[in-house]
Amino acid sequence: MKEFELIKRFFTEQAIKRKDVLLGIGDDCALVTPVERQNIAITTDTLVAGVHFPHETSARAIGHKSIAVNLSDLAAMGAEPTWISLAVTMPDVDLEWIEEFCTGVFELCEFYNVQLIGGDTTQGPLSITVTAQGITPIDKHITRSGAKAGDWLYVTGEIGDAALALKGIFNEVEIAPEYQDSVRHSLDFPPPRILAGQALREYASAAIDLSDGLISDLEHICHASKVGANIVLEDLPISNALRDTVGMEKAIDIALVGGDDYELLFTVSEDNRVGMETALANSGNTITCIGQLNGSEKITTTLDSKPVAINAKSFEHFSQEAE
Amino acid sequence: MKEFELIKRFFTEQAIKRKDVLLGIGDDCALVTPVERQNIAITTDTLVAGVHFPHETSARAIGHKSIAVNLSDLAAMGAEPTWISLAVTMPDVDLEWIEEFCTGVFELCEFYNVQLIGGDTTQGPLSITVTAQGITPIDKHITRSGAKAGDWLYVTGEIGDAALALKGIFNEVEIAPEYQDSVRHSLDFPPPRILAGQALREYASAAIDLSDGLISDLEHICHASKVGANIVLEDLPISNALRDTVGMEKAIDIALVGGDDYELLFTVSEDNRVGMETALANSGNTITCIGQLNGSEKITTTLDSKPVAINAKSFEHFSQEAE
Repeated sequence: MKEFELIKRFFTEQAIKRKDVLLGIGDDCALVTPVERQNIAITTDTLVAGVHFPHETSARAIGHKSIAVNLSDLAAMGAEPTWISLAVTMPDVDLEWIEEFCTGVFELCEFYNVQLIGGDTTQGPLSITVTAQGITPIDKHITRSGAKAGDWLYVTGEIGDAALALKGIFNEVEIAPEYQDSVRHSLDFPPPRILAGQALREYASAAIDLSDGLISDLEHICHASKVGANIVLEDLPISNALRDTVGMEKAIDIALVGGDDYELLFTVSEDNRVGMETALANSGNTITCIGQLNGSEKITTTLDSKPVAINAKSFEHFSQEAE
Repeated sequence: MKEFELIKRFFTEQAIKRKDVLLGIGDDCALVTPVERQNIAITTDTLVAGVHFPHETSARAIGHKSIAVNLSDLAAMGAEPTWISLAVTMPDVDLEWIEEFCTGVFELCEFYNVQLIGGDTTQGPLSITVTAQGITPIDKHITRSGAKAGDWLYVTGEIGDAALALKGIFNEVEIAPEYQDSVRHSLDFPPPRILAGQALREYASAAIDLSDGLISDLEHICHASKVGANIVLEDLPISNALRDTVGMEKAIDIALVGGDDYELLFTVSEDNRVGMETALANSGNTITCIGQLNGSEKITTTLDSKPVAINAKSFEHFSQEAE
């Protein structure tokens, strides 16, 4: 009991005190005052040790990641994050672990002005469930279903490094010493593209965050929007680390089906392209056009303008892991 | 992957479609439109198998209970429940189990007009985390901190039967056949006192739901309100099942420290007593006055007007289990 009380203290010692939070942690519920003419976006994600992160992941990285993957969902809707509820189940009370975990949580909360408004700590196998909430002006949010044939397909940042890190951990590849830190950082500290998402509200026709992998998440957009897409493989934003470690062909495979990137995949009409590119440059995000949507309801890939079959095997394999 | 897709279908097949839900399950986030001049109450609770419910609990009961314990927190604030996010971690995909679990979830959601707006299913040891949200008119909510010396202490329903059921499961007591069903029902299907909570908004000075046990939860009110309390033991609402199974003395002990009742414990000023009793009778809830607050900042108990020491040992024992 007393140890769990100590944990509660870690949760309540936070720098962020939002004006719209009437009552934070400590009563039966938190109370927030919604902002006028804003909708509320709500998302929930669970991370289980050994499934969503390797067992040897640092507590700070687990803290960061459990918040980041949820903020990433808010980013994909164009929402501004506001409130977080955090449920931590842990095998035993390890105050050092929880303090480090909280460091990871609060670094991100402070950066994005998000307040932790509720927490539950229970004993059991390690897993973390976060519910994140954010606000978007009424009629100014992005869904998966607004993409149209002819729209251009973009992605933020670089993709594939998180999947490469996992392959390194499972000894499937050997990562050169000079790349190890940056590659592991991509897996452990994914960046929620909050500012990019908000900039995209005015321009994108659809968006999703890359958690399952590029093809898999593009399928969600295509399915919801009833469109197809072609990906131009030579345009994929692949890091030097990924290319140098596995070679270009395998790097493309990993970029297509590897998950955990938490970059934004989004679509923009021809008319909105210039405006979007300016807005995104101002938000400090790099973006890459990686293809175009069409009316086929299928996903295809081309290399140097020639059709290339998608490596379905690695894709299916990944899909089963993705949940 | 396909099996998890089937699970998603169970989650989306629900009868409730609230007008304030712009976008339900299926995109990166749900979107809701807050009601004007209402605050939002938010609560999160995790149930872990073997900690918060016995392993052999039925899937329908687990579904009911994971929603009920969260709605119970909303009830204690006087909130009207609106939206639920549900994260289920389960060891393997058992479609029969999940269907039965969903029955338990949706029975309660339909009764209280609550919409499931987000779900995440992951593989791992069985646990369920729910974030429940509700609305309360601005300035019309109940906290733990408004109680004053002289206020009367009330509880809804009967208390102690859920703790008795646990003792039966652990073979600490033998429950007579005629009581077994009702006692087990108290543990598996606790009633969130939503209508009582809303009726209390106008009258109660403080409220909490009974999850940890009467003494423990009363301590939360006393601590937050800086008051003390005396409980009149002969007035505790104890069921025939509890009294007949363990005798009156032990029954009182169990009612004081047993948890999992999910009844409301609340305080009312002398001036509000008559109005409250009428309002609660209209809401269909039975209530019992079990004592009075005072300025001592201590919790005491009396039997036939004589002071009785609280069985601190069983209380401490329970506290450690309660998290």
